[in-house]
Amino acid sequence: MGTTQLESVAEPKYWHLRTVLSEALDSEFSVGEILPNERDLAARFGVARATLRQALEQLELEGRLQRRRGVGTTVAPPRVGVAVGTEQHIWPGASGDAWQLSDSTFEVPSAAVAAALETGQDEPVHIVRRSRMTHGQPVAAELLHVPASSVPDLSAIDAPSGAARARAVLRELHRLDLEGQDSAVELGSARADDAKQLDRLPGAPVLVVTTRYFARSRTAALSVATYRADTCRLTFGDSGAVEIHEDPERRAS
Amino acid sequence: MGTTQLESVAEPKYWHLRTVLSEALDSEFSVGEILPNERDLAARFGVARATLRQALEQLELEGRLQRRRGVGTTVAPPRVGVAVGTEQHIWPGASGDAWQLSDSTFEVPSAAVAAALETGQDEPVHIVRRSRMTHGQPVAAELLHVPASSVPDLSAIDAPSGAARARAVLRELHRLDLEGQDSAVELGSARADDAKQLDRLPGAPVLVVTTRYFARSRTAALSVATYRADTCRLTFGDSGAVEIHEDPERRAS
Repeated sequence: MGTTQLESVAEPKYWHLRTVLSEALDSEFSVGEILPNERDLAARFGVARATLRQALEQLELEGRLQRRRGVGTTVAPPRVGVAVGTEQHIWPGASGDAWQLSDSTFEVPSAAVAAALETGQDEPVHIVRRSRMTHGQPVAAELLHVPASSVPDLSAIDAPSGAARARAVLRELHRLDLEGQDSAVELGSARADDAKQLDRLPGAPVLVVTTRYFARSRTAALSVATYRADTCRLTFGDSGAVEIHEDPERRAS
Repeated sequence: MGTTQLESVAEPKYWHLRTVLSEALDSEFSVGEILPNERDLAARFGVARATLRQALEQLELEGRLQRRRGVGTTVAPPRVGVAVGTEQHIWPGASGDAWQLSDSTFEVPSAAVAAALETGQDEPVHIVRRSRMTHGQPVAAELLHVPASSVPDLSAIDAPSGAARARAVLRELHRLDLEGQDSAVELGSARADDAKQLDRLPGAPVLVVTTRYFARSRTAALSVATYRADTCRLTFGDSGAVEIHEDPERRAS
């Protein structure tokens, strides 16, 4: 099994093609340029259409290509660095925040969210929906889950829905002392509603960032944010984006 | 374009199947169990093999399924939380570090790494190779790039290669005062050599974490670490792993 077995497996054909195509992108194409159609590309490289498609999918996964309905396959610009972690802990929606509020509802969250928040299985929580744009493009969609116990003074006379309601939930949340936060990043696929917001098809690869906010020694809010994996690089730390974007085959030099 | 157009597109067939299969995984299968073969599954759900494969790939991307040569498709265990960021800044290889040293070479890095390190285009740097295991499984492979100017006292009489050489490079690096560090996470695909180390095929989706270490007001070392995206969740912050792992369709409750 494992390593020994992999060693005896020849480099897959699509992987070789991917490397050749990647070099062609560097030398013959510029950012935004439309590639020839699949039939012409397959003929040029002497491969089956299925192999070509696998190689194109690979390069799309690596952020080198973009495939857009009605446009075709274009050479992607370098990924945009999007800051997701700072040295200081701050509540979502604090001033200087990069997110736009769109809505807030009060509903029963998924079992996994309920478990993380330690709310009861059928206990509704506030779900604030936010989105984030960079250079005029949607890059992330977020669901911020806030248990009713974190915002006890939120009154029924506050706006019942929409962005005004979302603002009221955050305003009440900010009354708590934030004791800490942690985040996790993993690969996921876009839910139907996130996909629409991110201008992608359902199932597109996304980076899912889950952040817990702690106050009064418990989880006071839980954010599940979905970032476009094709166009974003998530940055953590104090000194801004790391300007590295390159072909994986060449990382080793 | 964009949102308006996506709204008119019906849910893709494989995406619907993915949701149905995901529910079947929850209700009928346990972790480690082998799924029926593709022909039987396609027949059971009344779909073409190609549609079934797309749905299986989707669930693999989400970490729900594992496909292993010679074994078949099995139900994956929950992803493992792997800590990649701490509140304190520490040099790679400091005590308590989760990495194993394997080798060190002195060679010209890729153009992108040279640019980030501000070394000359043809200037060789030390490249320390490290790997990381969790629960006996390989989870990450790293190339740590150290310019010669960061380790000026590394002598020729130090071990010329192998793990001993790698230890010597890190020992000299630790003499510098670490002023700060930052990281970026992005989606990538496994290079041939990383793939072998991670027990995957070339091109498998990986999370690439690039970390810059600053000393004497410049980048003293640059790490490019490749984590298995199927089995890992990267955690940042002080309070350990975020215990969230769920079906993306159910995140919204």
